[in-house]
This record gives sequence, C-alpha cells and structure tokens, in this order.
Amino acid sequence: MKPATPKGTRDFGPQEVFKRNYIFSVIKKVFEKYAFLPLETPAMELLSTLSGKYGDEGDQLLFKILKNGDFLEKADAFDNYKKMAFQICEKGLRYDLTIPFARYVAMNRHALTFPFKRYQIQTVWRGDKPQKGRYQEFYQCDVDVVGSNAMLQEAELVCIYDEVFANLHLPVQIRLNNRKILAGIAEVANISDKFMAMTIALDKLDKVGVEGVKKELLGRDIPEAATEFIFKIIQTSSMEQIKKLLQSSPLALEGIAEYEEIMAFLATMPLKNEVVFDISLARGLNYYTGTIFEVLTPAVQIGSLGGGGRYADLTGLFGLPDMSGVGVSFGAERIYDVLEELQLFPETAFSQVEVIFISFDAATLRMAFAYAQQLRAAGICTDIYPDPETKLKKQMKFANDKNAKYVLIIGEEELKNNTISVKNMRDGVQEVMSFTEFYNTLTQS
Amino acid sequence: MKPATPKGTRDFGPQEVFKRNYIFSVIKKVFEKYAFLPLETPAMELLSTLSGKYGDEGDQLLFKILKNGDFLEKADAFDNYKKMAFQICEKGLRYDLTIPFARYVAMNRHALTFPFKRYQIQTVWRGDKPQKGRYQEFYQCDVDVVGSNAMLQEAELVCIYDEVFANLHLPVQIRLNNRKILAGIAEVANISDKFMAMTIALDKLDKVGVEGVKKELLGRDIPEAATEFIFKIIQTSSMEQIKKLLQSSPLALEGIAEYEEIMAFLATMPLKNEVVFDISLARGLNYYTGTIFEVLTPAVQIGSLGGGGRYADLTGLFGLPDMSGVGVSFGAERIYDVLEELQLFPETAFSQVEVIFISFDAATLRMAFAYAQQLRAAGICTDIYPDPETKLKKQMKFANDKNAKYVLIIGEEELKNNTISVKNMRDGVQEVMSFTEFYNTLTQS
Repeated sequence: MKPATPKGTRDFGPQEVFKRNYIFSVIKKVFEKYAFLPLETPAMELLSTLSGKYGDEGDQLLFKILKNGDFLEKADAFDNYKKMAFQICEKGLRYDLTIPFARYVAMNRHALTFPFKRYQIQTVWRGDKPQKGRYQEFYQCDVDVVGSNAMLQEAELVCIYDEVFANLHLPVQIRLNNRKILAGIAEVANISDKFMAMTIALDKLDKVGVEGVKKELLGRDIPEAATEFIFKIIQTSSMEQIKKLLQSSPLALEGIAEYEEIMAFLATMPLKNEVVFDISLARGLNYYTGTIFEVLTPAVQIGSLGGGGRYADLTGLFGLPDMSGVGVSFGAERIYDVLEELQLFPETAFSQVEVIFISFDAATLRMAFAYAQQLRAAGICTDIYPDPETKLKKQMKFANDKNAKYVLIIGEEELKNNTISVKNMRDGVQEVMSFTEFYNTLTQS
Repeated sequence: MKPATPKGTRDFGPQEVFKRNYIFSVIKKVFEKYAFLPLETPAMELLSTLSGKYGDEGDQLLFKILKNGDFLEKADAFDNYKKMAFQICEKGLRYDLTIPFARYVAMNRHALTFPFKRYQIQTVWRGDKPQKGRYQEFYQCDVDVVGSNAMLQEAELVCIYDEVFANLHLPVQIRLNNRKILAGIAEVANISDKFMAMTIALDKLDKVGVEGVKKELLGRDIPEAATEFIFKIIQTSSMEQIKKLLQSSPLALEGIAEYEEIMAFLATMPLKNEVVFDISLARGLNYYTGTIFEVLTPAVQIGSLGGGGRYADLTGLFGLPDMSGVGVSFGAERIYDVLEELQLFPETAFSQVEVIFISFDAATLRMAFAYAQQLRAAGICTDIYPDPETKLKKQMKFANDKNAKYVLIIGEEELKNNTISVKNMRDGVQEVMSFTEFYNTLTQS
C-alpha cells in the first residue's frame, strides 16, 4: 500500500508548524492585550447546527459523518443521496468558526459577561474541489465581539489589524465600507431590487477601474440614469460630496456616520498602516449589515489577507435575538505565503538544535548523555547521536542535516582526559576543552 | 432550535483553553529541549490508512466521512452496513497519532534525517459510548523517535516524563517493564499459548495483590506449576533473582539487559521522580515488542497519566520495514483533572484583564480609548466598556465579572482636569491621579 494523505489535505512538518505557530503567536498576543479570550469548539457539530447556514452550495460542501453502528436501520432514501445523507449522518465537520461561535454564545448566554470578546484559531473543513492553494482542511483565525453596537469595537479591530501586521513587518492597507452606504446607493439610484448586481459590479473596481465598472453596471441591466449616479459616486474621493449625493437616504447617512465615528476614534492613534474608505468593498454581503473590513498588502500580488464585518443579529438563528456582533478574520494561509515570499519569518521562529553529541562506545555515550542532561537543564536544545558504533562520518552528517551549531565529540582520549572536542559548525573551528568551559560559554552568552 | 454540541464532544471556554495550553506549553518546552520536532497531520485520513489498524472494535469506532456528491452512485450493499460504509466513505477521522506518524514517516522516508524525533499534540476521534470522563473527541500528546534501537531513547523518554511532571509540580512514579521479559516468563512457564491470559492476570497486581493474581492465574486455566513459577517471580523484588529464574530464556535475558541499560543511563541523573521496575506492567501489548512505560501519580486516585513503549516495526504496514520506534504519550485529559483537583494551575496560566476603562459620553470614551491604546502598546491587557451611556453600576459589574485589577473612571470632571479616577479592585481604594502617573506605576512595577 502506498501511503498518502487524502486529496486537499496536508501534513505540516516541523518547519511549517514552527512558522505557522509564529504567525499565530503574534496574532494571539495582540488579541489578548485587547482582552479577547480564546474559545475552542468541537470539530464535529450537529448537522442541525450546520445545515442551512451556508447556502445550498455550502450544504453540499459540508463533510458529513456517518452514524456509528447500523446506520442503514432507519434509512430508506436509496434513490436520493441528498435526503439519504441526513438519514445516515447526524454530525458534520466545522465549516467556519462563526456559526459554532454563535451556537456557543446562545448556549452559554447566562454564564457569559457581555460584551463577550472571543478569538478562535482552529481548522475548518470544506469539500471544495482541491486545487493549488485551496485545501479541504485549513486554519481559520477569527476575532469577534458580541453584545455591543458601539463603533469602538470597529476601531479596536482596525487597531488589531494594524498592530498584528506591523508586528509581522508586513505593510498593509485596511479598507472600510458600510453595508448601509451600499444599500443607500441602491435606494437613491432606485435599483434596490438590483442590489446584488450592483455590488458585484462595484467589487470589480480594483480590477477594471471606474470606466470598467460603468460597463459592468450597464451589462447587468442597471438603467443608464442609475449607472451615471453610481459612476458619479465612485469617482469622488470626498466624503462630503458622497454625503450630499446620498442625503435623501437616512440609511446611507447612518452608515456614513458610523464610518466617521470609527475614524474619530482612530484620529489621534499612531497607526502604522493606512486606513481607507473603499466604497466598492462588498464582501460577505449576505450577512453583514454594517461595517465591512478588508485587508490588502501592496507588497505582493495576492488576494485579501483578512476581512470581516458587523452583523446585526449574530445569534438569532440559535434563539438569542438582537445580539449585534462584529469581527474580523486573518487569512492565515495567505499570510503564511506572503511572509514566505518576502522572507519575513524570523530565525527565532524555529526551535533549533544547538548541540549534538557524538560518541564511540557505551562509556562515551553515557558520558555524552550525562553532559547533554546538564545542557538541557539549562534550557539548551541538545541531541545525541544514539548509536555510538556508527561511523564518525555518518554521525557528522546527522549533525549537519540537523543544522546544529556545535558538535561535541567524546572519544576514548577525551573520556580519559576529562575533556570534549567542540566543533563549531558555523566556522568549522574545532577545539578541545573541558565540558565546564563549554557549558559556561554557552550559558553565559 | 435548542443549540447543543454532539454527545461526547465539548466546547472549551477561555479558562479551559488557558489551562490546557499551560499543560501543553510545559510539555512542548521539554520536548523541544530534547530536540523533538512538532508534526501535524490532517484530521482526515484515507480509510485505507486507518482501517484494520485498531482491531475489529477500532474499525467500528472509526468516524467515517461521507463522500461528497452522489455517494450512492457506486453503492449496492444496502443490506450490509459494514460493507456499505466502505462504498460510501473513503476517509475517516484520525483515531490516534501513531498510525498517522507511521504513514508520514513512510511517505517522507527520503527527506527525513533518522533517527527522527517528533512530537504531536492533536485531537483524535473515537465513536466510544460517551460517559463521564470519556469523550468522542479528545487530545492526544505523543512523543516518539523512529529509526534507532538504542536504549538511550528510552532513557531520554524517562527523563522527559520526569522533567515534565516535575515542572507541573505533580509527583509521579515512572514504571518500566519489557515485553521480552513477559514473553520469557510465559516461555519458561511453558504457557506461551496462554500469554494474553497471563498478562491480563498480572495486570491486576496493583488491585488484587500477589495472592489475588495467583487466584486469577488459576482461574484462567493456567496450570498449577506455571502459576507457582509466576507467583515466585512477582513476589521477588530482586532483579538478580528474576534473572536466575528466567535464565533458560535468552529472550527474557535480553529484555532484562535492555532494562539494565536504561537504568545505567539514569544511574547518575538527578531525577525528581521514582523510576521502578514493574513486572506486572503489560499495556498495549498487541504492538509493543520491547520496553513498556507507564506513569502513575500517588497524589490522586486516578488511572495512569501516560504510557508507551517500543515497537520493533513501526512503519512496516506502510512499506518501510525494520524501523524500530519508541514513544510515550501524556494523558492530557487526566493530567488536567489532577492539576485541577490539586489546584496546581499557576495564576500566570491565565491571561487576565489588568485595566478596564469606564466612561460616560462620547468624549470621555474617546479619551479612554486613547489611554487604553497606550497601555496596550506597553503590553498591558486592557478593556473598555464600550457603551458610555450605560449606568455606572452596570459598568462596574462588568469590570468585576472580568476580575480586572484596576478600573479607570473618566467622567466630565476628570476630562476637564486631565486626570483619571483609579479604583484598585483588590483593596477597593480609589484615587485621583494623572494618567501618566498611573501608567508609570504600572509599567515600572
């Protein structure tokens, strides 16, 4: 049998785990300073929790888990696999972190203190067709607050984005919009029934420019007059101008006021990245009802590194209505790729073998072990080649492959004289000294 | 719809995540000093990787994942659910960390440097009947080395157990045995065909004592003479005596020599916990072939906190024969319960809100945010009650529920005078001072 992982899944070897944990530790440290608390939910959720939450396509992409035991006992839909699936499965794998969070908040409403700020970094599973850069199992990294309508929350999330990417040494642009402004534009242009078509066209502004959007709008059956109106709005960079154009829509003005309140919080902050208003931003429109966030980097040609927004009713689906939530997520996979491409992973992200011992028989191996334990007690990452009968060349190759800083050789001579031979693998210099001398140099540096 | 998690699964709230991460961070730190490297494998493995590896019972307990799309297309075993399962599923959830590790090593044999030392801390899933303390989704924490027959590895694993539990401030006893010794006893007693029965009886030594084991042996159709022989062995605490009794079995003597080699490595080590030979230890016998480990604590009435052993052929199942592996695991769930019961979780294991701001209108809230950002920039965990119109009493309750150390109140008066009111929540004392004064006290302490 040729061993393999399922399509769309990956093993993460040591280097990848270290690098990913570096990203997560930078992110977590910022989250925790802002008083967000960690939550972990089960990989398996009830299908009743998951299904119907991600649209028809999402329902198809959910990984469903077969009931244990005789799952056929109560099944009869042998000619309808969609129906059959729900007869023979009652659990599915987590598809995102938002629905489990909402489920958790609703379940624990009486025990939690609101506003409740939580972060969650866990894998999710989706049965998408595997392709380059798209996996069936991947990490999500979400930070949300539920139970507060205050724009302070949005301001904090902008600061979190700013600080995380600054700490990762990755310059970004943080873009904001508000679903209410978009709805207001459609309202004033009298095309509320074509809202989705309008946002899909607007979403292409980055790619096709203002003239391109105009063509898109017309191509999507949006009347000439409405198209001209939208064209005027996306051409202006003045918020005052936009306000004037949308003054007949209380909803749009509310969205603009929210945006301005966020910016008032940020006005005096020493942000390290640019925060901009982007009227074309429309992600995740199906459930966002207020602010919309997106993060892009000018450093690399890649999609967004994160995004999020506010939803007026996060937990209503689970019987807890009128709880407004706002949150953003970090696209861990893409951030990983960008840091890799720009070589921004610091050397300290890796646990590295500092010392490897080489010995030649049972007695020198025991000596090596005794010394190694002293180094380990001092917190130094140390390894021992375990088979002393192995040829020196092969033992040295092992030390080389492991990228050790020092190789400590204990032979018969060294054992007799109570010394060790220290080879510095960076400069190749080899010296004989006492173990204490080596220990002191290493632990005092 | 009443929200719920599937039976046998749990949400981990903030306190639980912090506590569990404390355990894992203590463990990881030790693993990494011993040059073990982290590995993460996918939650989903091919059923061809998983099935047949855990016995018939294990196959039934595997969670199988329904194929995406029309899974019924190629299915016809509508009257045989066991057969049907393999027609409609091709993936299953990870059942342990050993098989995925073996699969990974076999897949990456040409890229890895041997001996390869890896640790892995991930969840596994088993369809056991849920009951108190037994879950369908739980963490495992394994450390293994593959590609070395040296007893040095066993000695290192004993030291790792010793150091981890010392660092957790939990006294333990580390028990060792060797499968070869057990096989040798059966051989000399001429009951090799009753090997399993013998080990099951021996395994009860702790519970029923030597006389009890004698009864067990006789009850399991082990002849009187063999029973007397085994009785003699378990009554002696002298390894020399045991050697004499088993001298006709080269296999037993090999096992004893291995044990003695481990103890020779440990002889000069300043271990903090007791290491004992336990001839009744027989865990996981189906695949262990050499040393067997178990860790128990005298502090609490609970099962073993960890165990493991050596297996002569770890990766043979995946086409890479003759690779000996040895490893141990930490029972994270039980360790958690024991630390909880003995109140051994340190206060530093939790991220705690140090400062919470309270304000009364838009202007004081903006001031609070500006101050909060300065504290956060200094690494201090800070929160802000986001709705300034809320009554003081309710805001104070929030700060209380969050267990904040300081509450910083900014009212109209404070804003005008450029001061803050600081309430120390530990002693209840409230003082008025400048923010700089407070900042300096906090950051310089």
